[in-house]
Amino acid sequence: MTDITMIRAAAARANGKVRRTPLLSSPFLDEIAGRRLFVKAECLQHTGSFKFRGAWSALSGIPAAARANGVIAFSSGNHAQGVALAARMHGVPSVIIMPRDAPALKIENTRALGADVVLYDRATEDRDAIGDRLAAERGLTLVKPFDEPLVIAGQGTTGLEIAEQARQEGIENAQVLVPCGGGGLTSGIALVLADQASGMMVRPCEPVGFDDVIRSLETGQIERNAALTGSICDAIVTPSPGEITFPIMRRLCQPGLAVSDHDCLRAMSLAFKRLKIVVEPGAAVALAAVLFHGDKLEPGDVIAVASGGNVDADMFERAIKMT
Amino acid sequence: MTDITMIRAAAARANGKVRRTPLLSSPFLDEIAGRRLFVKAECLQHTGSFKFRGAWSALSGIPAAARANGVIAFSSGNHAQGVALAARMHGVPSVIIMPRDAPALKIENTRALGADVVLYDRATEDRDAIGDRLAAERGLTLVKPFDEPLVIAGQGTTGLEIAEQARQEGIENAQVLVPCGGGGLTSGIALVLADQASGMMVRPCEPVGFDDVIRSLETGQIERNAALTGSICDAIVTPSPGEITFPIMRRLCQPGLAVSDHDCLRAMSLAFKRLKIVVEPGAAVALAAVLFHGDKLEPGDVIAVASGGNVDADMFERAIKMT
Repeated sequence: MTDITMIRAAAARANGKVRRTPLLSSPFLDEIAGRRLFVKAECLQHTGSFKFRGAWSALSGIPAAARANGVIAFSSGNHAQGVALAARMHGVPSVIIMPRDAPALKIENTRALGADVVLYDRATEDRDAIGDRLAAERGLTLVKPFDEPLVIAGQGTTGLEIAEQARQEGIENAQVLVPCGGGGLTSGIALVLADQASGMMVRPCEPVGFDDVIRSLETGQIERNAALTGSICDAIVTPSPGEITFPIMRRLCQPGLAVSDHDCLRAMSLAFKRLKIVVEPGAAVALAAVLFHGDKLEPGDVIAVASGGNVDADMFERAIKMT
Repeated sequence: MTDITMIRAAAARANGKVRRTPLLSSPFLDEIAGRRLFVKAECLQHTGSFKFRGAWSALSGIPAAARANGVIAFSSGNHAQGVALAARMHGVPSVIIMPRDAPALKIENTRALGADVVLYDRATEDRDAIGDRLAAERGLTLVKPFDEPLVIAGQGTTGLEIAEQARQEGIENAQVLVPCGGGGLTSGIALVLADQASGMMVRPCEPVGFDDVIRSLETGQIERNAALTGSICDAIVTPSPGEITFPIMRRLCQPGLAVSDHDCLRAMSLAFKRLKIVVEPGAAVALAAVLFHGDKLEPGDVIAVASGGNVDADMFERAIKMT
């Protein structure tokens, strides 16, 4: 099970491979938020999202003999690119199973990073069956997107950087808002901060209507989303929290926050204008929560994670037209 | 005169105040450039451009008694915001003289950062006379935008970070492309690299038609631009290189490169798509040069400085619509 020792080991393996992303701020955003606000710009990570951390941790953490056969992953987006690049950097093959209707750019990027992309039809084909067959045939190791200890450890390296950067900025107590899908990033950061920064409280953020983690934390058991489409925050829409990630979040996280698609677009616009970074909708939920729903937070400093920037030009235009 | 000792002193004063900006890269950009390419993302600096470095250096480097009276600067853009924020952080007043037709957003931002903005009419009023009068009345210290040793020293701190980050990336020899207006950033970086990284060659980049530095380096004397309007790269259009900066560039820089507005927009689009950063047109000249004019460069690694990100939504939309 993932713990701080495992996260430190992931950080040691990541040294020189995973990018240390900056903690940004702007007096203009502080004014809107009515508090000191810092943004962990994980959109600047390799492949444009934190997913590369978990992928690197998994690839570098499995036995060399297994790794040499290659890895396999299911993903329509950021996890795909993270695994593809981590595999290429290790010089081993990767197979990524993607839905045929995934955005063409994401398929193209994943292929360009050297992955063997296998497309399937969501309506008529069984993704898991295809994956099982390929894994068995080629001896591939499955890299799950979040419910996997090595992946959680990799995402947790974000928390190590946050703890160190917060100390440098003189932040002792803060709410740390994290965009939350299956909970890999949220639980990884929570494990680190519980160990290293007792004044830091992690609060997961989700899109309104796709708030499985928020509701699960409220009821104390795993709750599911009614639908999996209908939000522009596609990168963080998952059926439910993971079986490994949920107990960690239940133990260590404070209540979550839900924000609308509209608020995400407004937050993306302000990140463009004031921080000069490109944030994708799902990665903007934490920034949106502190900028527009501060009344639901405790007083004091906030660190918001901007977890990715893989957004197409049309969607980004929609955001920056807003004020 | 600015030298490495003065730049080190500026770096010591900047510690904890100036942001250390990341060196970014993307395998997709490497492929387009046909070489290893690194981008110094100075658009992520406080106030969205490297100008804050020089402003902080100047404010922190002048005697406390003079500083207490306040500072004055002339600028329609990035230097204005840098000086305003540096003054506010020192708790001293700043007066910024801006043309009445400067972009409304830049005037608004400068005011919001606490500066006393004085507007003048370019056609009918004498900017220098207004400045001289205010400086005399209030005992203000002038902070020039580039031809000032303390400002060059501040911009040079970018070079210290580049040298250190290049070592971490294993880069020994590289061409360092720098967007060049009056030459403060270019000469500051060149001073550092000449001292610390003998395998690094600085090459200034400018917009086609506003290539005063390129021509000055060719003829060995200060040449002037025929016009000062007509490029979207407004932030780096200056009449001529500075009297202090030019001798430094002449001694230490390799030939410059000119790129079109169209190439800048394409480079901005690729920085959006592949690096997740917002780069303004004038700050994209170096990236454009390596991506689209590699035939004019020596072979080998390139570090391109992306010097700012203060671009409005309309212009950014124009860029990201391109492929």
